[in-house]
Amino acid sequence: MEQQKTLMEVYNKASYPLIGQRKRNMQVLKEVFEQVDGDLDSDIYGEGTVIDDFQERMASMVGKESAIFFPSGTMAQQIALRIWSDEVGKKKVAYHPFCHLELHEQDALKELHHLEPILLADSTRPVLLQDLLDLKDDVACVLLELPQREIGGQLPEYEELEKMSALCRERGIKLHMDGARLFEVLPYYRKSAVEVCALFDSVYISVYKGIGGIAGAVLIGDRGFTEKSKVWKQRHGGNLIGLYPYIVPADYYMTENLPKMEQFYKEAVELASYYNNCHSLKTLPEVPVSNMFHVHSELKKEELEAIVIRITEETGVGLSHIIRNRAEDGCFFEVAIGDRYSAAPRDAVAEAFCLLDESLRG
Amino acid sequence: MEQQKTLMEVYNKASYPLIGQRKRNMQVLKEVFEQVDGDLDSDIYGEGTVIDDFQERMASMVGKESAIFFPSGTMAQQIALRIWSDEVGKKKVAYHPFCHLELHEQDALKELHHLEPILLADSTRPVLLQDLLDLKDDVACVLLELPQREIGGQLPEYEELEKMSALCRERGIKLHMDGARLFEVLPYYRKSAVEVCALFDSVYISVYKGIGGIAGAVLIGDRGFTEKSKVWKQRHGGNLIGLYPYIVPADYYMTENLPKMEQFYKEAVELASYYNNCHSLKTLPEVPVSNMFHVHSELKKEELEAIVIRITEETGVGLSHIIRNRAEDGCFFEVAIGDRYSAAPRDAVAEAFCLLDESLRG
Repeated sequence: MEQQKTLMEVYNKASYPLIGQRKRNMQVLKEVFEQVDGDLDSDIYGEGTVIDDFQERMASMVGKESAIFFPSGTMAQQIALRIWSDEVGKKKVAYHPFCHLELHEQDALKELHHLEPILLADSTRPVLLQDLLDLKDDVACVLLELPQREIGGQLPEYEELEKMSALCRERGIKLHMDGARLFEVLPYYRKSAVEVCALFDSVYISVYKGIGGIAGAVLIGDRGFTEKSKVWKQRHGGNLIGLYPYIVPADYYMTENLPKMEQFYKEAVELASYYNNCHSLKTLPEVPVSNMFHVHSELKKEELEAIVIRITEETGVGLSHIIRNRAEDGCFFEVAIGDRYSAAPRDAVAEAFCLLDESLRG
Repeated sequence: MEQQKTLMEVYNKASYPLIGQRKRNMQVLKEVFEQVDGDLDSDIYGEGTVIDDFQERMASMVGKESAIFFPSGTMAQQIALRIWSDEVGKKKVAYHPFCHLELHEQDALKELHHLEPILLADSTRPVLLQDLLDLKDDVACVLLELPQREIGGQLPEYEELEKMSALCRERGIKLHMDGARLFEVLPYYRKSAVEVCALFDSVYISVYKGIGGIAGAVLIGDRGFTEKSKVWKQRHGGNLIGLYPYIVPADYYMTENLPKMEQFYKEAVELASYYNNCHSLKTLPEVPVSNMFHVHSELKKEELEAIVIRITEETGVGLSHIIRNRAEDGCFFEVAIGDRYSAAPRDAVAEAFCLLDESLRG
């Protein structure tokens, strides 16, 4: 008797997976380095042309003085909050309840940096001006994540963002951006990276989400801030003797992928409308504001998994590789658009959604 | 008028540099990945075949239950000491005054982990049994670096090491090895990695010193210890979405370089004797006990630099890329043997040392 296949297994074998960029395999690295001159020197402990050039590219792209390459966003963001806490002389920092630091970092902010997070907003929506006005605690820093990934990539409206920035400046609160997916929100905002980043004192950007690199992040701000971040990077064990295996791919794929952000955003809007046209499914946001959204269902996780597995096996279209339970009844999954979506044949996608709608009406 | 060239510039252009492995350029990575199947999956946040297999290889090579790959030794060692501190319930840890954690990590142990280092031994020799017997403080852990790099790679005798291990066990003190260069000391000890590591509760090994990889480290111990280290690795921001750009080269170059450790050790002994035969130079140790040693001179740094630059320009033989001032008068430089030493023509080396002796006799 054949063992039942998991959603992940079926998705990984799908001919037309709709989510994300290409598969995370070693070809991602090989493709880049096939084109690199072997005589090019490694960076050495944070110095050298390869790291300097990329850091300058990132800083100038967002209109700030200086950028530092980090092995991870986890490291970069804790350090940003620690620097602002030390500078302002306050131990409290404020962010959304679904902030990466709160959910995915094993309480590092408390365990390593002894900072006290204050949670802003309720967990169903992004942080808004009123949350900052209501803030009773005396915080060193506010972190805003654009878009707020764990609630489907929701965003505050740009005017709201401007007001929050003005309020923080007025009150002497540092404003840090979790811009893991910064470039992915620019098409909706119709703003440049320079304009959005001007509202913040410091910015973290991931190089392996929309940018499509292998791993790593940059932390950006004025030179006083980034010089301090280099000391903390060394303390965290992030000042590696060579970071070029991440820097060179980041540089390469950024050139390739940044021009596609508008397309990914439009495709997310299109794909969300397919889901919303299916019986009983709803996307969050209803109309995406970046390349991502969540798909919510009142079905049990196992029921939706069975349907998605069957559709993927019948049509070759991979809709999701992981469906999660909601806190309340029902389930949801995340969709983020990359190169794979446009590579899927339109008729196969149409067939998959036709089947999905039928199955849900079942 | 030609600007005077620095020692580093001259060394980097030398036909026959005597120190270390190959040049740190991108060919180091390209060579490895040219032979890798592009369809091979990346590790994902610490999981997957590529990381599991390497970790198992390292653990079994040193005869311990489990190994975890880290982006850096800085990260791995702080975490080891933190785990032992938490487990034993004491904030003090003891190590040599020239320990990496004391010299090169921006006080991270204090700033991030709030541990209090107790310095053992005087800075001219390695930690010995008597230092532990004299220890007044109640410490959670002792760190021993084998070999002690910043004093020329000196080692305690193996019997001394066994006694220190027994004492720590008797007193409930955890014993951690900074084994950045563990494989480099095995030929002198005439012991296996399993035998040496059996004396320790936890071991860190660098993958880019003798092993010859690009960057990274492993932390090794029993499973209870390494499971805790994974939580701290995430907190430090070291649990990258893909560490394979460091793991695959570590695996590749380890196979290539581990069999050469005996040769590197013998060559270090040979090269040290060349230096000791030069007027006014002395190596530390006089007879190396690993692939490394220091060369000491009573000359001023600038005087020795001028001599070394001239010899390198005349003979093509690179003796040193960086000469440092001693705390007392005089200067010194570090020599570590890798593939480059045996690649240099014997007659060129002989000519260089002949000139060096003559120049020092002035």
